Amino acid sequence: MDQLRPDLVPHPAVRRLSLYLRQLELFRRKDRRTVSSKQLGQSLSFTDAQVRKDLAYFGQFGHPGVGYRVDDLIARVRHILGTDKIWSVLLVGAGNLGRALMAYNGFDAKGFRLVAVFDADPAKIGKRQGPFPGSTPADKRSFVIQPLSQLKETTEKQGIRLAILAVPADAAQEVADRLVEAGIRGILNFAPVSLNVPHEIALNAVDLAVQLEQLSFLANFSALSRPA
Amino acid sequence: MDQLRPDLVPHPAVRRLSLYLRQLELFRRKDRRTVSSKQLGQSLSFTDAQVRKDLAYFGQFGHPGVGYRVDDLIARVRHILGTDKIWSVLLVGAGNLGRALMAYNGFDAKGFRLVAVFDADPAKIGKRQGPFPGSTPADKRSFVIQPLSQLKETTEKQGIRLAILAVPADAAQEVADRLVEAGIRGILNFAPVSLNVPHEIALNAVDLAVQLEQLSFLANFSALSRPA
Repeated sequence: MDQLRPDLVPHPAVRRLSLYLRQLELFRRKDRRTVSSKQLGQSLSFTDAQVRKDLAYFGQFGHPGVGYRVDDLIARVRHILGTDKIWSVLLVGAGNLGRALMAYNGFDAKGFRLVAVFDADPAKIGKRQGPFPGSTPADKRSFVIQPLSQLKETTEKQGIRLAILAVPADAAQEVADRLVEAGIRGILNFAPVSLNVPHEIALNAVDLAVQLEQLSFLANFSALSRPA
Repeated sequence: MDQLRPDLVPHPAVRRLSLYLRQLELFRRKDRRTVSSKQLGQSLSFTDAQVRKDLAYFGQFGHPGVGYRVDDLIARVRHILGTDKIWSVLLVGAGNLGRALMAYNGFDAKGFRLVAVFDADPAKIGKRQGPFPGSTPADKRSFVIQPLSQLKETTEKQGIRLAILAVPADAAQEVADRLVEAGIRGILNFAPVSLNVPHEIALNAVDLAVQLEQLSFLANFSALSRPA
């Protein structure tokens, strides 16, 4: 694995790796032991050539006449994605979207644990948010909102490497700068604005308007192509 | 445009079209009149060949010795994406994420208008949500939560084509089926589960765990490649 040059792996291939992992986990829940590249591809509408090419960036996984061993491939894909260990994640922004992210219970199963929440609003700082509606008795997650002045200390003390940014667009760049200064290595940005970060910092963006544009493109043409 | 076969355009090219549009709008705010494929590409870390290839799926846009006219290209990309008209959008799910989406004020500028919100919870139905904290005096958006039994009637009456799904994973497929039956043509899914919809329905998913996995992949290897 140390030979891998992640900068040479196309981003779409890494994205598909996540999709393969979801599908493999689904196969395992159905007690499947092995799967071929064709079966894995078909379940996600990819060709078997695409599956083999994507996996080949990371090594040799298949067994002739057997295909992939589901357990083995899950473990290796998790190792590649880095989710075979637990990542501590912090959140900046305790507004509506921030609350949704605090309440979201799908992170833990994927190897991510939200451990700290920050906001600039004095009315929120020091207050506890959670437990959240719909949470199970076993899941009593709650967070005391911290001021941005504690960002660096908390990040270092808790060994946090990843951050989710859910602040208004006009505050996003300043907060991103402070995250980088605090030692954060990867940022998931929900603010509808492009961020400038040093090239060694991983950056992913969820722009809701972009998502809707992709839909309107498809819905637009499916309307055109239907008979009137 | 009617000659275009949208099913032959690769999804990543459509996604980049959204990015080109954001960048072109930024150029226009800075009073730029024209831009070359090289300049447009550089601003987004793409090659000029990539820009030309993506745009070539949709027609001939450049002018020799001038490049692209910014206003003209914005108008044409919006037309391709279908955002030169206003799309009415409905939302199912008035929980934390749903509230964040109701409060989000970035949709209107992109040609999307949230016009109706549905939920299955009798405690929420009939109640008004909003105006939202942080909204401007001019923006007094609020929504009366409707029951799912009104989905079809509202969709037809208001000519809604796009839906955002922000419900728990175990309810998502059933709601998706009802959306399709109600005449919805495109679904943006936030539930962490794969949906089955007829092939003529556009489907886009925002899986938060997948987003974080992409980050951990990059942060993982940037850690490995740093000297210890």
